[in-house]
Amino acid sequence: MDPDLFQQLNRVIHEKGRLAIVSMLAATPNLSFSEMKEMLRMTDGNLTAHIRTLKAAEYVAVTKAISKRRSLTTYSLTQEGNLAFREYLKHMEAIVEQSRSSHIPTPSNQA
Amino acid sequence: MDPDLFQQLNRVIHEKGRLAIVSMLAATPNLSFSEMKEMLRMTDGNLTAHIRTLKAAEYVAVTKAISKRRSLTTYSLTQEGNLAFREYLKHMEAIVEQSRSSHIPTPSNQA
Repeated sequence: MDPDLFQQLNRVIHEKGRLAIVSMLAATPNLSFSEMKEMLRMTDGNLTAHIRTLKAAEYVAVTKAISKRRSLTTYSLTQEGNLAFREYLKHMEAIVEQSRSSHIPTPSNQA
Repeated sequence: MDPDLFQQLNRVIHEKGRLAIVSMLAATPNLSFSEMKEMLRMTDGNLTAHIRTLKAAEYVAVTKAISKRRSLTTYSLTQEGNLAFREYLKHMEAIVEQSRSSHIPTPSNQA
């Protein structure tokens, strides 16, 4: 087992809620706050806090547009966020792979 | 994207340090505190705190043995811990898989 693999997991992305947000923005760019909130079933407070962390890391960018006199704020993954997410997936894939290959069966595994 | 996948990630196992401990115990059962500490390069305080959480979840069991008049304490994954870890790996695999298949390429991805 390579302990460095775990150390290398990006702390900003690894958190469950942020992993969900980043995964969603990687698949569907330019989402509004309420779209994200609805899809992820998060509270306003939780989503706001996670977006703040993702913006501070420069992984998420905010776009404000005026459409039919209403302002629309959307969120998208930055290039840096995209790269960090791909890196995270690579590490997580390696961890899963490593665990699958080194796993020692116990009686519970045959259940 | 299925938001439930993220909700289902086991909070006890998902934390980076505990993920490392559980992965290690899944591959090498019956490790002493100092063996784990050395392999994971964690502080006593960190490792103690993580083991406490894993014991509270009944994922890790402690065995105390007397050998040559010295007591030896070792740690191992319980059946419950083993099952929870396998479940975690399954969810994480699905998340990685889902992200790989739904990922929209951006200019940064061609770099």
